[in-house]
Amino acid sequence: MCIKPSNLRLFGLTVIYFSYLTLGALILSKLEIGKERQTIELISSLKKEFLQRNEGVQEDDLEQLIVNVVLAGARGVPVTRNATGDSNWNFGQAFFFAGTVVTTIGYGHVTPSTEAGKMFTMIYGIVGIPMTLIFFTSLVDRLMVPTTALLHYLARRLRRHNHFRVQCIHLTISFLTLLGFFFCLPAAIFNYLEDGWGYLDSLYYCFISLTTVGLGDYIPGDSPYQQYRSLYKILTTIYLLFGLVVMVLILNIFYEIPELNFGNMFLLKSDEYI
Amino acid sequence: MCIKPSNLRLFGLTVIYFSYLTLGALILSKLEIGKERQTIELISSLKKEFLQRNEGVQEDDLEQLIVNVVLAGARGVPVTRNATGDSNWNFGQAFFFAGTVVTTIGYGHVTPSTEAGKMFTMIYGIVGIPMTLIFFTSLVDRLMVPTTALLHYLARRLRRHNHFRVQCIHLTISFLTLLGFFFCLPAAIFNYLEDGWGYLDSLYYCFISLTTVGLGDYIPGDSPYQQYRSLYKILTTIYLLFGLVVMVLILNIFYEIPELNFGNMFLLKSDEYI
Ligand SMILES: [K+]
Ligand SMILES: [K+]
Repeated sequence: MCIKPSNLRLFGLTVIYFSYLTLGALILSKLEIGKERQTIELISSLKKEFLQRNEGVQEDDLEQLIVNVVLAGARGVPVTRNATGDSNWNFGQAFFFAGTVVTTIGYGHVTPSTEAGKMFTMIYGIVGIPMTLIFFTSLVDRLMVPTTALLHYLARRLRRHNHFRVQCIHLTISFLTLLGFFFCLPAAIFNYLEDGWGYLDSLYYCFISLTTVGLGDYIPGDSPYQQYRSLYKILTTIYLLFGLVVMVLILNIFYEIPELNFGNMFLLKSDEYI
Repeated sequence: MCIKPSNLRLFGLTVIYFSYLTLGALILSKLEIGKERQTIELISSLKKEFLQRNEGVQEDDLEQLIVNVVLAGARGVPVTRNATGDSNWNFGQAFFFAGTVVTTIGYGHVTPSTEAGKMFTMIYGIVGIPMTLIFFTSLVDRLMVPTTALLHYLARRLRRHNHFRVQCIHLTISFLTLLGFFFCLPAAIFNYLEDGWGYLDSLYYCFISLTTVGLGDYIPGDSPYQQYRSLYKILTTIYLLFGLVVMVLILNIFYEIPELNFGNMFLLKSDEYI
């Protein structure tokens, strides 16, 4: 009996993959559990102090109110009095939501709560997600023209180097451009515009968004007294769309360098070259 | 002056794409704004009744408490007394979180709140997302063997039909298998296991997850008295991983039918065939 080399490698990858998930879980657990306990204790002491200040208040009565408010808040409804009265479903916000569904970012800070809204969101995604894929692919197709021109220019200038090396330099230039214009610069802008977002928070927002993870813990333009909220939301949507296209472009450049695509060694066809 | 046909088509697609986003925003706005207003009014009247019942309570004092609790809740900390005391960062939950980062689902119902946690999440994603891509591609590569065998079997049985027709039948069978085993069946299971999830909610959860949108408005195993919560979270992670692999498989089968890939008509190379 003989196991194909590619299958052996895939078995190794499977072990590594689940170990990676386990390790990530252990580290995150370690990093976060302390702060979580602190927050729970803080909230609990705030409640206790409130009850001490207001002696007539029943604990259960207060608890019930808080549960109702938190549950509504979890569905994206602004439940605090300081909210400006802007709806979460005005045009700018809804446009932002639609954009995050079709790009699969899906922050989820605002979600449909009606049956019709959920049904519509599914149908909207079934059409919209493939459409976004096609749209982005076509844009990347056009952006590959100047990108390839740059590669040819570099190849002429660096004639003494081999093709692989030139491709790597080209990839590095493209990657640094992405990093500068779609991560570092926008992060600086968000850091400036958003109250309470440090530079790390802003960079984290850009990263979580352009990888389409979209955790939704940071959302631009959601501070209570945000001016031009709708416009800001629409501009952010456009930043995300462009950023995602450039992410796909860089991935494309990467895929055109066969030496770097070591993922291929896990495929069945890799056995044929032995 | 002459515009390339593919560029003209891409221009059309761009117009359609932004109209689609606008239309989606308008419809969602229409569908959701009523229910949102109802919830805001409900919360507001609950607060008012609470203040009437407890005459000594200062409105600002109550409001401040609620703001603090809601902000903590938005970061995924369980802030209501009924929470069982399970941490959001125990092993099962953290494993689930790690899985949703590397697959880019990113529900965001739980998010890192420490600087170290955010930094780690970024680095974890930079390694984990490409690893997931490679892992899934290799699994799809293996699953293509039985899938292609089925296609050949169908081609032999349906000898009188042309190849395109056989491919379409094959795609339909694969798609219906996906729909049954990774959408309808799991939705029935979630509908049974989760309190307050209707069948539509459960199906919506599966759809939002397997498209990697991951809004996070529905999360399995988060009800306060959930038994075997960690095991349930790990099993759900495995369902999601398998489901995503089969989604990529179906997409692969689709891509192997050139007649259906009408997205190609927006690419520059489509001009060459005229
Ligand atoms: K996502
Ligand atoms: K998400």
